Amino acid sequence: MCLEGNCRKFFDPHSLALVGVSRKPGSLGHKFLQAVRQFGYRGRVYPVHPTVPEMEGLRCYPSLEALPEVPDLAVIMVKKEQVARMLEACGKKGIHHVIIITAGFRETGDEGREREMELLKIAYRYGLRFLGPNCMGLFNTGSQIRLNASFSPTQPLPGTVAFLSQSGALAVAILEMARTLRLGFSKFVSLGNKADLTEVDFLPFLLEDPETRVVMLYQEGIERPGTFREWLYRLSCRKPVLALLAGRSQSAARAAVSHTGALTGSTEAVEALFRQCGVVSLERVQDFVETALAFSLARLPGGPRVAVITNAGGPGILTVEALERAGLQVVPFQEKTRRRLRQLLPEEAAVENPVDMIASATEITYRETLHTVLIDEQIDAVVVVIVRPPVDTTPARIAREFQTVLPSETDKPIFVVLMAHWDETAGIEAFHRLNIPVFAYPDSAARALAAMWTYARWKQQPPGKRLSYPVDQEQAARLLAGAKTSARFLSEYVAWQILQAYGFPLPAFAMVQHLEDALETFRDWNKPIVLKLLSPQIVHKSDAGVVWGNLDSEDAIRAAWERLQQVIAAHPEEWAVEGVLVQEWIPGQREWIAGVHKDARLGHVLMFGLGGVLVEVWKDVSFRVVPLSDRDAREMLREIRASKLLDGTRHLAPVKENDLVDMLLRLSQLVSDFPEISSLDLNPIMATDDGQRLAVVDVRIEIYSPEESRSNQEKGRKKKA
Amino acid sequence: MCLEGNCRKFFDPHSLALVGVSRKPGSLGHKFLQAVRQFGYRGRVYPVHPTVPEMEGLRCYPSLEALPEVPDLAVIMVKKEQVARMLEACGKKGIHHVIIITAGFRETGDEGREREMELLKIAYRYGLRFLGPNCMGLFNTGSQIRLNASFSPTQPLPGTVAFLSQSGALAVAILEMARTLRLGFSKFVSLGNKADLTEVDFLPFLLEDPETRVVMLYQEGIERPGTFREWLYRLSCRKPVLALLAGRSQSAARAAVSHTGALTGSTEAVEALFRQCGVVSLERVQDFVETALAFSLARLPGGPRVAVITNAGGPGILTVEALERAGLQVVPFQEKTRRRLRQLLPEEAAVENPVDMIASATEITYRETLHTVLIDEQIDAVVVVIVRPPVDTTPARIAREFQTVLPSETDKPIFVVLMAHWDETAGIEAFHRLNIPVFAYPDSAARALAAMWTYARWKQQPPGKRLSYPVDQEQAARLLAGAKTSARFLSEYVAWQILQAYGFPLPAFAMVQHLEDALETFRDWNKPIVLKLLSPQIVHKSDAGVVWGNLDSEDAIRAAWERLQQVIAAHPEEWAVEGVLVQEWIPGQREWIAGVHKDARLGHVLMFGLGGVLVEVWKDVSFRVVPLSDRDAREMLREIRASKLLDGTRHLAPVKENDLVDMLLRLSQLVSDFPEISSLDLNPIMATDDGQRLAVVDVRIEIYSPEESRSNQEKGRKKKA
Repeated sequence: MCLEGNCRKFFDPHSLALVGVSRKPGSLGHKFLQAVRQFGYRGRVYPVHPTVPEMEGLRCYPSLEALPEVPDLAVIMVKKEQVARMLEACGKKGIHHVIIITAGFRETGDEGREREMELLKIAYRYGLRFLGPNCMGLFNTGSQIRLNASFSPTQPLPGTVAFLSQSGALAVAILEMARTLRLGFSKFVSLGNKADLTEVDFLPFLLEDPETRVVMLYQEGIERPGTFREWLYRLSCRKPVLALLAGRSQSAARAAVSHTGALTGSTEAVEALFRQCGVVSLERVQDFVETALAFSLARLPGGPRVAVITNAGGPGILTVEALERAGLQVVPFQEKTRRRLRQLLPEEAAVENPVDMIASATEITYRETLHTVLIDEQIDAVVVVIVRPPVDTTPARIAREFQTVLPSETDKPIFVVLMAHWDETAGIEAFHRLNIPVFAYPDSAARALAAMWTYARWKQQPPGKRLSYPVDQEQAARLLAGAKTSARFLSEYVAWQILQAYGFPLPAFAMVQHLEDALETFRDWNKPIVLKLLSPQIVHKSDAGVVWGNLDSEDAIRAAWERLQQVIAAHPEEWAVEGVLVQEWIPGQREWIAGVHKDARLGHVLMFGLGGVLVEVWKDVSFRVVPLSDRDAREMLREIRASKLLDGTRHLAPVKENDLVDMLLRLSQLVSDFPEISSLDLNPIMATDDGQRLAVVDVRIEIYSPEESRSNQEKGRKKKA
Repeated sequence: MCLEGNCRKFFDPHSLALVGVSRKPGSLGHKFLQAVRQFGYRGRVYPVHPTVPEMEGLRCYPSLEALPEVPDLAVIMVKKEQVARMLEACGKKGIHHVIIITAGFRETGDEGREREMELLKIAYRYGLRFLGPNCMGLFNTGSQIRLNASFSPTQPLPGTVAFLSQSGALAVAILEMARTLRLGFSKFVSLGNKADLTEVDFLPFLLEDPETRVVMLYQEGIERPGTFREWLYRLSCRKPVLALLAGRSQSAARAAVSHTGALTGSTEAVEALFRQCGVVSLERVQDFVETALAFSLARLPGGPRVAVITNAGGPGILTVEALERAGLQVVPFQEKTRRRLRQLLPEEAAVENPVDMIASATEITYRETLHTVLIDEQIDAVVVVIVRPPVDTTPARIAREFQTVLPSETDKPIFVVLMAHWDETAGIEAFHRLNIPVFAYPDSAARALAAMWTYARWKQQPPGKRLSYPVDQEQAARLLAGAKTSARFLSEYVAWQILQAYGFPLPAFAMVQHLEDALETFRDWNKPIVLKLLSPQIVHKSDAGVVWGNLDSEDAIRAAWERLQQVIAAHPEEWAVEGVLVQEWIPGQREWIAGVHKDARLGHVLMFGLGGVLVEVWKDVSFRVVPLSDRDAREMLREIRASKLLDGTRHLAPVKENDLVDMLLRLSQLVSDFPEISSLDLNPIMATDDGQRLAVVDVRIEIYSPEESRSNQEKGRKKKA
């Protein structure tokens, strides 16, 4: 059953059964009923209680069966042992939409997990859908029906933000913070354990909901990643999606599991997925709510160039620093702007960017200065800093003046940093009515604006294409099929052939069994070579001392061959020698790594990063979930901190970026074609110092199927025995 | 004249003259008088106004001369053109302490600079000291005399924080923010242009001031760096000093100059100075005020291990992440703690760290849980997360319960993250009275606590020692004296000899003129060598193609020599060839750089960082102002991001860290002994892969004196002509 058409029944029910209400003040069942009534619900409410005939002036019913109609929505908040029975009663009554508030399910361990499975069985049997368990409910401020079916202690402000939260309590916290910031919501859903309904069920509805301009997601885990990805992407193309992802650190991930029993994907993978879908991902609660405020009010900036106007030098300087720290630019004005400001402002004022109007600035000075910098074509956004001035003006009066120059003249976003006591006199609502978000600190405004620019740029750029290269898939399939019967790690020789079939840029390579063949190959290529001993038992060749590089003479090759034989002789039983790989030596000072691993939740995840001797020190890597678009690949190259290396340095020529993009896309195509590849490493990928050539220098492919894993384990056991 | 004894007169004047008061509402002169009176000043006030006989019920005087006594303090806020005359009048009257509020001096350009010089001359003539100009005044909440001699529109809360601010407006902003946070101040000084008095004049007073526990500094520039450093260090040893430094970015630095006409030292140098003095340096305004709140209330943590207790899972997870992001640790509890929590809390609760007491937690649950984790010996600090709960408890009630378990039992700091609407019901004052700072967001608490731990650790560690190595200073002096007559960059050969005199670890080196000598040296050493052509005209040898490395055979040396001759032949006129440096080849994959440059404000600044081909990409460096202590040197090695490289990797052995420390200290000693060294680069310093040897591989020393610079310029000009 698809929920899409039925979200309406959750958000706009004409009738509502409340199972588990209570007369006891302070109890959950009591608070819930109060919340429904205080928010002014206009539908019909049916409290269900086995013994109480009346509650808060409403008639109570002893059971769901006794209700005079089939309600659109039922809320269950009875004890955990009774939930299944009540859900069954909902099914029997013909109720199709249920919210289960009660906790004590999957999040508490095996017994709870079974209780939760029981709920799912009942739901399938009756064709009903439910939210929760272990959730806080939902509300809909935009609805005519005025539904607050949650035990949130905070009265939500109406607004344009829809908020789906896995944690009920975090949602409470955010609704409270939102009140301080004056951030308003259109819809709110506490998802709880997501036993049945998940965020994926609500995204299509929010995509179309005219009352929702911005979507906030608080995630502790990802369900149905394929569908999630698809809808996230579609939604982001239309409306900004902001995500706060918990479970980044080890201890936090442990806590997240015990909290809602969520199975988290690796943070890198989820972050990558978000990036690919244009989701604005945030780490900190404060950024989450402040960025939502910015998106819910202001227009998207057309570029990163910001003007700062201030009535105070120091705060202006700190705002410039905050903007630059966030990756935005504070650029010089056009000459005409400077000239106008010079005419407008007193002699002591600074007419460069930041404009310091000095402490004598009145609301008129603010208005005229804003007007002047808004029409500067070099400027994409304006941050207005207001420090409580010694002269007789107030933020509210400044807002009133701003109204006279807005919004006909500009589509540039304007932010206010109000460095003043955050009380009623601050005139925050007056700015918000002009779609100007107000922040207490320079960094808050800067980070929110930077997030908007990141999203705007994502939307501006052409969507990524999933390219399909002409490759010899059949050849690769044959090679893989042949290899699968043997070991978990493919022979490097087979791996090279698979890469060749997929058109990767490779060094020349050949497999030989005799020294003479190696020498012959060297003479033939007339280039320095590498010798590698191949054996299924050797996974880390360098550590095993079976790689000899940069051999540039027959003598050197003979010496290396001799030493290889010595190493083999020292391991007579363990190693089955496959042969010796002769490989062209690629010299260069720049190395990258690329690899794929399989994430438990999200499938193949592709990694690209800086290689070399410092690889473990820097951990300078970027991730994307397979399949990649060309845009993904391009972004990965630029996301790593050492991306400047691509452009070359004083002694190194630039690299052909397209060749690297091409390589990442072929890698994505290869693992998409062969899901049995459980991991793949290209380490390193070298660039020659002249930038002319790029090649994979080492490869490792791991294949994995449950049967093999088992048989491998058995082999291992036999060996030990 | 030393201010130390006289700060009292600025903060506790028994009589106060106000020159430039006004009856006009909203004017600065009017506001100022109002502020003095509203704060309840208990001394004698003398408004000075040429025509008005009475103001706000106070008798006015037509001139300073007419005053019935010599006031302890005078405040001047007349027009900029009249300031000098009024200051002169102060001098004549015998007033020794003056605050000049008026703007329009150094910050406005040359003319203003002259006006400011005039003020200084008057002050010297009369032996008076003044604050400003272009400042906001000062206040003293702790004083019996109740002085608010500032035009701050905010009534300051009394507290234990002293705040010296270069920017008046930023101070206003911070006083306003402080009101929202309920942060109180003992003293406040707006320093303005610092024409006469600077922060250095106030630090000794604050060191002894019993009402001040924490010092906040907002700096846009540094004056008298030597004395500043000394007092900062002394102060930090006793009380935490928090600094917010503006002018980090290029555009911000430009704005800072135009703002108070400050001459900023380079940010790196000032940051280094702060670190050496134990100053807690902050980048963002929000961190600045929040960290001050933490220091002003809580005890210093004894370690980085934090317990989190929460009534809500999601916010608990986010708090753990925030703590880990800030560099703190959320560690497992002792077994006895877990056992007690298990008894105490409901089945659904999580008794690991973070402790999730779940939503049913009451104030009693909070109290008992806090009590239990506080006595866990593994725990150094506790963060209590409070989300507005569904049950009937309030933050104020939780605070009341906390009081019963505090403070007799613990000296561990406790922080509250109150994720609730920030209003009067939040009970913030109740927690503050228990010395528990309250924050709105997890990251705010985490960063403030991390700053406290950083400071605590700095205090715990033994102070650094300035070692003096036995070196051949005379030899170095002779070499430098000989070299100074010639070029700006020393010959590398001379530079090597100077390093040798100072005991640096060096490769073997020798100067030769003939191929035969080079070959002889090679045979003698029996190691691969490097050949470098030395000429005063070649500064970047690698770029000029006159360095040939890793020469491991006589053939290779002959070939390199031949090519050197060719390069020389190609530049017959420009290059005066000094000879060829033969140097032992040091092989290794790890490179560092160390260097010294002269900062315009702070003198010699020493830099240490990662070297190698990616040096420009990573910019992974650390700075200290000379002279260095052994502790400084040790910290530098660990401050760079790639510090793990010192510990070795899979293929590289650890480096002898003491040898590197030694090298940095010798470098500090060398430039301290010879101020004429304007820059010095050791680039690279190599470590062999076995970690056994560390050596400087290339050196460049620049000496600089004004005369030479001029004569060099002349030479340059002649050449062109």
